[in-house]
Amino acid sequence: MTLTTPAPARGAVPAAPAVRNLSAPATARLLGDWRAAGPAYLTLADALRSAVLSGTVAPLTRLPSERDLATALGVSRTTTAAAYARLRDLGFAVSRVGSGTVAVLPRGSATVRGVQRPALPAGDAPAADAPGLDGPLDLGDPLDLGQATPSATPALHAAFSRALEALPAYLGTGGYAHHGIDPLRAAVADRYTARGVPTTPDQVLVTTGAQQAIALLATTFVGRGETAVVESPTYFHAVDALRRTGARVVGVPAGDVETLASAVRRTRPRLVYLVPDFHNPTGRSLTAQERAFVRGVADRYGVTVVGDETLTDLALDDDAAVPAAFAGDGASPRVVSVGSASKAFWGGLRVGWVRAPEHVVQRLARTRQSVDISTAVLEQLAVVELLSRRDEILPARLADLRTRRDLLVAGVRAAVPDWDVPSPGGGLCLWVGLGRPVAQALAAAAVAEGVHVTAGPVFTPDGASRDRVRLTFTRTTAELEDAVGRLARAWRRVLG
Amino acid sequence: MTLTTPAPARGAVPAAPAVRNLSAPATARLLGDWRAAGPAYLTLADALRSAVLSGTVAPLTRLPSERDLATALGVSRTTTAAAYARLRDLGFAVSRVGSGTVAVLPRGSATVRGVQRPALPAGDAPAADAPGLDGPLDLGDPLDLGQATPSATPALHAAFSRALEALPAYLGTGGYAHHGIDPLRAAVADRYTARGVPTTPDQVLVTTGAQQAIALLATTFVGRGETAVVESPTYFHAVDALRRTGARVVGVPAGDVETLASAVRRTRPRLVYLVPDFHNPTGRSLTAQERAFVRGVADRYGVTVVGDETLTDLALDDDAAVPAAFAGDGASPRVVSVGSASKAFWGGLRVGWVRAPEHVVQRLARTRQSVDISTAVLEQLAVVELLSRRDEILPARLADLRTRRDLLVAGVRAAVPDWDVPSPGGGLCLWVGLGRPVAQALAAAAVAEGVHVTAGPVFTPDGASRDRVRLTFTRTTAELEDAVGRLARAWRRVLG
Repeated sequence: MTLTTPAPARGAVPAAPAVRNLSAPATARLLGDWRAAGPAYLTLADALRSAVLSGTVAPLTRLPSERDLATALGVSRTTTAAAYARLRDLGFAVSRVGSGTVAVLPRGSATVRGVQRPALPAGDAPAADAPGLDGPLDLGDPLDLGQATPSATPALHAAFSRALEALPAYLGTGGYAHHGIDPLRAAVADRYTARGVPTTPDQVLVTTGAQQAIALLATTFVGRGETAVVESPTYFHAVDALRRTGARVVGVPAGDVETLASAVRRTRPRLVYLVPDFHNPTGRSLTAQERAFVRGVADRYGVTVVGDETLTDLALDDDAAVPAAFAGDGASPRVVSVGSASKAFWGGLRVGWVRAPEHVVQRLARTRQSVDISTAVLEQLAVVELLSRRDEILPARLADLRTRRDLLVAGVRAAVPDWDVPSPGGGLCLWVGLGRPVAQALAAAAVAEGVHVTAGPVFTPDGASRDRVRLTFTRTTAELEDAVGRLARAWRRVLG
Repeated sequence: MTLTTPAPARGAVPAAPAVRNLSAPATARLLGDWRAAGPAYLTLADALRSAVLSGTVAPLTRLPSERDLATALGVSRTTTAAAYARLRDLGFAVSRVGSGTVAVLPRGSATVRGVQRPALPAGDAPAADAPGLDGPLDLGDPLDLGQATPSATPALHAAFSRALEALPAYLGTGGYAHHGIDPLRAAVADRYTARGVPTTPDQVLVTTGAQQAIALLATTFVGRGETAVVESPTYFHAVDALRRTGARVVGVPAGDVETLASAVRRTRPRLVYLVPDFHNPTGRSLTAQERAFVRGVADRYGVTVVGDETLTDLALDDDAAVPAAFAGDGASPRVVSVGSASKAFWGGLRVGWVRAPEHVVQRLARTRQSVDISTAVLEQLAVVELLSRRDEILPARLADLRTRRDLLVAGVRAAVPDWDVPSPGGGLCLWVGLGRPVAQALAAAAVAEGVHVTAGPVFTPDGASRDRVRLTFTRTTAELEDAVGRLARAWRRVLG
């Protein structure tokens, strides 16, 4: 590794435009608590690299000057210069003469968590002049243990064929159903009723996936400067959606309902977001007693509690039944449930739903008209079909996921005995304890070995969980086996 | 009509919960400049009724007390009491003993612009005790001259069949394509290139409909307290999306680019939103000179100008070619184009797109992950197919819309000679001048006659255009013929 600032000709990419400037204070904020054991420049470089990999820092972002970043972070300029040099060496940054350092993705890491490597503008310097873009990493597509969506159920194609048969009844209309088409609202309501929560179609809003449901709830219930309480760690796009409303997001330890209650008492939030079943990422489920306790908190403090049941169908242990509905048989007016077709059937289906009191459904439906008008009709018809065949479809899917989970758990336990690898009762991921706060370094080293994992801090509102990574088990068994070896090598890189 | 306050038993709906309180100042704000010729209580009742019909005031909203509303509006309490009484008589409000007046939709107006009449809670008072809910209006579904989406192209079903053949290639993935699937990005880029704006797939973001594109642009470019400039009148959901970011929305007369330029100079907005072709609702298109002028404004002041080309394909006059691309052959980096499959093919397809510089596409793609992750894959494949057959599909669709436009224009001109009924060169609606500021009264009277039209103030950020209504011509010719007679009767009601 070189600690010298490269000569102007090196790493210069004359025609690559930086598209966005990241200020030093903003960089400091997004890095959060980046310090860990080891030399500061290495830790800083790893944190920056992780931010680029996760998409937190977009490719082609111009990073702050070495001097400004040093001031903002309270480190020496030598440290920031060395960190930037290391980023360049690894292919995660290039320098432009006279205009600083620009974040890029290394050539070959074409798509990482959906963040595409920017195409080089026409007239760009050839590779020989831009070693930063043609550096030591040339990976092909990394094995993705980051994305938590399995491939489609084999039943999907037939469901769409059936949906297509039902479509003509809708083609004479304008195609807008702001609350969702009647058969889907009824099917979703019936499913809640069957799970012990009497529900009418009027209490169901169809959304364009669960993420839209969460975003609608965030914008509808939480205003700028108001508070939302989430578990920490938690599903990170929920935190994003809440932060985008200008909310203050307060984290409480995942699954700790007593602390949750005291946070509600203390901060008087407008909304609590939690994942009651096969929690993302910890895998834990709330007990019946804990659920009842949370519903009591909702009622006592008049706070809306959103239970994200996206993963609820994915009970993997043989003895695990589908969990009881979070809303409870009393169907507290303060408890809102979110569900989705993405995990049981396919992520490429963009259909989710909210179960809530009717007046909440009406409010959300008004908001959603300025968001995306309504959800695609054929998608909804396909989900009606899939839900009606749920009991035929799910067992094979669960068996498949169970095999993958068991393979990854056993493989990682054997390959890296240092790690704590709990086997979750359901869901799609392992929440692996590393025993030391090096998650970002591991995520970066894993990319160098051709596998993508997600560092723990991504899942926490405050950058904690630096001793954890999340590994999803949605890829094929062959890919998972391959990934295990790469993870072990990445760990040796980190230790070395 | 009665001017007396009803006795407690009358209109009492003990079990109907009001779900939201509207304060008197908020009511005054949303009514805006509600005064018009005629008795104040009638004008006020019409304005409130129009607000309920348009969804501005949600069903089951508790209105302010007569006293508070009188204070906020600067009218006598007699006026507000009489207005509320009229609302009750018309079925748009009910009174609850001791807890004021609650807005409702009349029984029978099951769906008006997608706002569904709330189901009565179990245990509700029977109709005899709740005349407000069972009043003089019992309409069945009104003829909808409000919604601006035609029924589906006959080619849609075949396009989905072909899409289904292409789907298996995607089923092995998680189904998320945050920027859109490659074939659709390429097809959209090719279409812009063919229209004279060289475009690469990297400059295209696929969105879940044009409304999502507008909402993403609003949240990405406009912060709280910052300014956005729109035409007035304009597409109202764009104003909604901008307001939801906390933006100050400044309106300039539609099509008046000089005033637009001076507003930009004066207010230094972050974003300008306009509809360059077959403007919604006025039907006017910008000339080539006006487009070039607006692009110059974008460059000179460094403001992002969003051109909504949702209606661009709908050139209805025989001599009208498809308009030139708004971005211009120079493809100004400040000009962003929005498009959609909803008007040319079907609104029930939720696929739109943004054409913008690549760095803007990257920013929008990051934001959209916290909004709805990505757009449904099969929908995108269907749009690839439809775009490839665009030149076969569109002529029949345009011929059909032309027939409907001509029928509605001729019918309304003949039935109501008082009105100014311009025939637009394209698009989906007529912007009818009433000659007097009674749009809200007409919209309310039209509902009483079983037809839904949209009052001009809905399309303006400041409640202006009270002398206009928008009539869409997307329904069948039989429905349009029926609607003409109803509109004439509604106008006689207003005059009477």
